[in-house]
Amino acid sequence: MAVKPKVLLLGATGETGTSILKGLQESGNFDIEVLVRPASMNKPSVQKIQEQGIKTWAIDLNESSNLISALSGVDILISAIGPNDLMQQKKLLQAAKSAGIKRIVPCAFITIAPPQGAMLLRDEKEEVYNDIKFLGIPYTIIDVGYWYQISFPSLPSGKVDYASVSPKNIIHDDGTAPNILTDLRDIGRFVARIICDDRTLNKYVYTFGDILSENEIYRIAEEVSGEKIESTQMSIEQIEHGLAQAKSAFSQDPRDPMKRTFFYLSEYQHSKYVRKDNRPEYAEYLGYLNARSLYPDFTPISFREFFVEALAGKAKKVYASS
Amino acid sequence: MAVKPKVLLLGATGETGTSILKGLQESGNFDIEVLVRPASMNKPSVQKIQEQGIKTWAIDLNESSNLISALSGVDILISAIGPNDLMQQKKLLQAAKSAGIKRIVPCAFITIAPPQGAMLLRDEKEEVYNDIKFLGIPYTIIDVGYWYQISFPSLPSGKVDYASVSPKNIIHDDGTAPNILTDLRDIGRFVARIICDDRTLNKYVYTFGDILSENEIYRIAEEVSGEKIESTQMSIEQIEHGLAQAKSAFSQDPRDPMKRTFFYLSEYQHSKYVRKDNRPEYAEYLGYLNARSLYPDFTPISFREFFVEALAGKAKKVYASS
Repeated sequence: MAVKPKVLLLGATGETGTSILKGLQESGNFDIEVLVRPASMNKPSVQKIQEQGIKTWAIDLNESSNLISALSGVDILISAIGPNDLMQQKKLLQAAKSAGIKRIVPCAFITIAPPQGAMLLRDEKEEVYNDIKFLGIPYTIIDVGYWYQISFPSLPSGKVDYASVSPKNIIHDDGTAPNILTDLRDIGRFVARIICDDRTLNKYVYTFGDILSENEIYRIAEEVSGEKIESTQMSIEQIEHGLAQAKSAFSQDPRDPMKRTFFYLSEYQHSKYVRKDNRPEYAEYLGYLNARSLYPDFTPISFREFFVEALAGKAKKVYASS
Repeated sequence: MAVKPKVLLLGATGETGTSILKGLQESGNFDIEVLVRPASMNKPSVQKIQEQGIKTWAIDLNESSNLISALSGVDILISAIGPNDLMQQKKLLQAAKSAGIKRIVPCAFITIAPPQGAMLLRDEKEEVYNDIKFLGIPYTIIDVGYWYQISFPSLPSGKVDYASVSPKNIIHDDGTAPNILTDLRDIGRFVARIICDDRTLNKYVYTFGDILSENEIYRIAEEVSGEKIESTQMSIEQIEHGLAQAKSAFSQDPRDPMKRTFFYLSEYQHSKYVRKDNRPEYAEYLGYLNARSLYPDFTPISFREFFVEALAGKAKKVYASS
């Protein structure tokens, strides 16, 4: 194609957004611009983006006239906004509709879960998806399961703790629930393929590098490291109790970001290991297309490959930079 | 197949339910049972069903143990419950899940509309669909657009008024909005095909006999009758004003069935003629399969055929019996 589709990316400095930006750049197929909050313009991560020559719009989502300028001529709008700002996306939609955006990719990028009632994050995303459908804007929802980067165990030697957000080995229930997992770095590679594919228009897509239970993850980590991994078990009752406590704390103080975070992390745990939502069968029941079937030529990073790298000191801890 | 799938039908005496019951019987492919409220057992319409030898369960949806008996061995559960009782369906779902129902067809059977925010009826249905997805019960959503039986104009001769619910000729806006229309009698015929088709499992399907604007409907009625039809125009502003009034009356008294009915009828009007939701393009955007493409061998009744019958005195007024 003569002219590259113009992509506007929101949330480019978060973990998911960084992966997306890199994936889009790597593909060479897009004319990329990013949209950040005016207050973020001086952040090192934003400056790094600008230094790469990427056009950066500093816009408050409440200023609809500026939004319309930023969206003008944009083909694809991708949002990787943070989990505490999901509802902010609603402010974008009327402007995206007026600008004639050809595809919106709202912030999904989580585990497979029912549209309502199991996870606060998913419920909020559903509100945004429903607003998109109300307006009739072409869309694609992309979910990625859980990341390898927050799914690996600690080793007795401590060798991978440098890359771990919480070096604590817990097996939930009997450790057999299969989970959809994607290497954080592959999210952008999948996104670059999905967003210029007619088959994914107005569809839900899930990506994965591997489908693994905790028992399988631990076995791979033991094989790769040669170490014997110890873990403690958390029963279904304990998961449910933890969720009830986190929910109660959150409902007493729903605007406290820490309580919100603990609540949605507890919901992830419950959805993944008690409800067992984050599996291909449930994704397909919910109407998702399988990105691996769509792109058989693309081989994502396997969990084993990721863990070999982690053991070699080459993994990067997530949520470690601003 | 040796044993016919067992279908349990809820709401068999309503307009949609009657069509479904007939369509299932006509096909000869199903072992049919119906479920009615205990208070309805003595209604003539229920007695007529029983006289045909159809097993009839008289069950209060609040009595979950009786529900489980009725649902045991059922392959397909179809609900054509009335528009004021949609939320009652939620009481069925846990029992349907426990009974291992192979497919649930919750009460859809309306026009195409966004999942949330445009029509109260659709919003309530969405809650039920979300509960089904939360439980992971295999499902099919079947929408049918508007019926011919409530979409035809009155003639100056008065010849079709006997079959009309409201013999008043209104053209909404400029009369060009296309609408998905199905003959009420064809709903059951479509349902009988859709519910034993693997392609429709966990999918949305829309049926139609014709896609017509009001202008096209009037032209057909004039051609068939040889009469010149008069009409009054209702502007978008008038539709919006009527909707605002109906909404306000409803919100002051949400439990008044008349106010609820006027409200949702106003929303139908707004959705069909202002938003222009009830069209194939929007259905396909929302992920619906086209029943006509699925069943090319089945020729539904056309609007012209329906109107020829109506003119010959052979149509049946809807909502005329209990």
